Amino acid sequence: MKVCGKHYRTIWMEGSTVLMIDQTLLPFEFRMYEAKSYKDTCYAIKAMVVRGAGAIGAAAGFAMAQACLEAPRKDYSGFIEKARKEIESTRPTARNLFYATERVFAAAGVSIQEAVKEAQSIAEENIRDALAIGRFGNTIIPSSARIATQCNAGWLGFVDHGSALSVVYAARDAGKNLFVYVNETRPRGQGARLTAWELHHENIPHRIIADNACAHYAASGKIGLFVVGADRIARNGDTANKIGTLDKAIIAREFGIPFYVAAPLSTFDVECHAGDNIPIEEREEDEVLFQSGTDAEGVHRNIRVCNPGSHALNPAFDVTPAKFITGIITEKGIIRPDEKEIVKTFHS
Amino acid sequence: MKVCGKHYRTIWMEGSTVLMIDQTLLPFEFRMYEAKSYKDTCYAIKAMVVRGAGAIGAAAGFAMAQACLEAPRKDYSGFIEKARKEIESTRPTARNLFYATERVFAAAGVSIQEAVKEAQSIAEENIRDALAIGRFGNTIIPSSARIATQCNAGWLGFVDHGSALSVVYAARDAGKNLFVYVNETRPRGQGARLTAWELHHENIPHRIIADNACAHYAASGKIGLFVVGADRIARNGDTANKIGTLDKAIIAREFGIPFYVAAPLSTFDVECHAGDNIPIEEREEDEVLFQSGTDAEGVHRNIRVCNPGSHALNPAFDVTPAKFITGIITEKGIIRPDEKEIVKTFHS
Repeated sequence: MKVCGKHYRTIWMEGSTVLMIDQTLLPFEFRMYEAKSYKDTCYAIKAMVVRGAGAIGAAAGFAMAQACLEAPRKDYSGFIEKARKEIESTRPTARNLFYATERVFAAAGVSIQEAVKEAQSIAEENIRDALAIGRFGNTIIPSSARIATQCNAGWLGFVDHGSALSVVYAARDAGKNLFVYVNETRPRGQGARLTAWELHHENIPHRIIADNACAHYAASGKIGLFVVGADRIARNGDTANKIGTLDKAIIAREFGIPFYVAAPLSTFDVECHAGDNIPIEEREEDEVLFQSGTDAEGVHRNIRVCNPGSHALNPAFDVTPAKFITGIITEKGIIRPDEKEIVKTFHS
Repeated sequence: MKVCGKHYRTIWMEGSTVLMIDQTLLPFEFRMYEAKSYKDTCYAIKAMVVRGAGAIGAAAGFAMAQACLEAPRKDYSGFIEKARKEIESTRPTARNLFYATERVFAAAGVSIQEAVKEAQSIAEENIRDALAIGRFGNTIIPSSARIATQCNAGWLGFVDHGSALSVVYAARDAGKNLFVYVNETRPRGQGARLTAWELHHENIPHRIIADNACAHYAASGKIGLFVVGADRIARNGDTANKIGTLDKAIIAREFGIPFYVAAPLSTFDVECHAGDNIPIEEREEDEVLFQSGTDAEGVHRNIRVCNPGSHALNPAFDVTPAKFITGIITEKGIIRPDEKEIVKTFHS
């Protein structure tokens, strides 16, 4: 997508360096982060310099390729095996991460060049999948639509275009009249900071709301449909996504509002039979207790927003049971969230 | 309740001055705000120096009494009628506000002294009601309980003791083993800032969670019951409370978790037939777009936490339909949220 007229991807590799938009600085500063080693890239995934299922997948693939380039000839296999474990431990919930390390690790057995090519392929496929998700998703968007979304499943969460927001962009390109309710998505505010940043740059009408306000707008008939992303989808359609997604899905069902998940097949984990088996990452309490942003002079500050002395719990994801999901928008079409259809699509 | 060993009320009147704990400074600073005129008290209600249904009621009663004291003898009636309108326009959702202005306004017809006495009575009744709510509420708390709450319905939201938290305090005093999930309650964070501050000072085990995380803990069986406050309860039991309450009520029903509202009868509006008729205050977008707190040096700062250029919507309350409410804990006992029982209790 374009930022101030210039085309960017969220993440890419040049030589042995991985470059990415530093998402910890957005929406206040637009700057690239350079990861010169696989360890730098691991740090970037862990610290959420890069985040979102698709972008994490691409980052993990690139990190694996970097590890191959860095590996000493005498202990090539030992080195890349260790690196793989390190990469896979950065964010345990995202399926795309494991999908990418597996593929690049396999290619690394052939040659370093093949490993790098495989990592590049993963990124290219991610873009093609995102565009296809947009095309299929557009078919369920009415000519005038009020859409609610959670977190950021936009182009910043992928290599380009996004999943949930790719649907929004495709509908906009088709000339539809859109309004987006952006759930701020505490604690890290990816809705308020990243989704709002994307929509603002694309001139798509939107308003940020506190996560608490979503039920109010759903109850008053203002929300026509929900489209969210996913971090991992089990074989039965149960979907792990950013914390607060389950909440929105329950609200949607209560008020009879369609609730769609948009995700490429690389987010599916067909080895995982149900949501109960998806590990939920618990992140540090400071993400809840502190908030960062800019003061009136534009200086970046980190402030305590909670009672000093109190502690917090901070699960990063939750699992939405398949029964709450109207359909999953994939690059192969919109599918029902049940095992039979998922397995069929996965192997088609 | 006590703060560092000394007993305080949230709000009280000395001579013609209304004193209150400045809740815009909590949890970072504990300081009193002095309202020397009824206009000062109006400002304090509007700016949420004092907040919470019960405390707003007491404040409104005191403001009305201040207006009587300030009124010129030549235009006593005109002055206090104008003041009443001004007081009633500060926070349109809270029922207790109108309950208090009505009562003090009526007493003002007798004498200024009667008006001041009536305002003091409202505050005293508020304390007695809060204690009774705690006693009745304690009967539904098991000996070991994991309770979730929203916003602050603690002693800071009343003249003393609180409604939802009065139940928690009574259960603690009865020797029960408690753990409280404190929903942070964006945008203003009354959970993270005020409820956590109260529980911390009372040494009651608790953790702050993002509003988004509540469904996750409800789904995983960790929450045993919900107890929340109310800003206005309609004749049929529909309850207006802080934004995000509806959300929690829907989650509670989905997972079969009891959902209690704790409120004195002064919060009921029997003239209001259903929740649709309760006006919902829309507050300024900056409450969502900015956050305040203290930096590492303890300096209070206000920072932008959302994408610059994006706008926000900020409804302050939502309405939870009666069907989601297990029971309403009042000073006359726990009642079912239906018209027959409410009207009977109200006139008993």
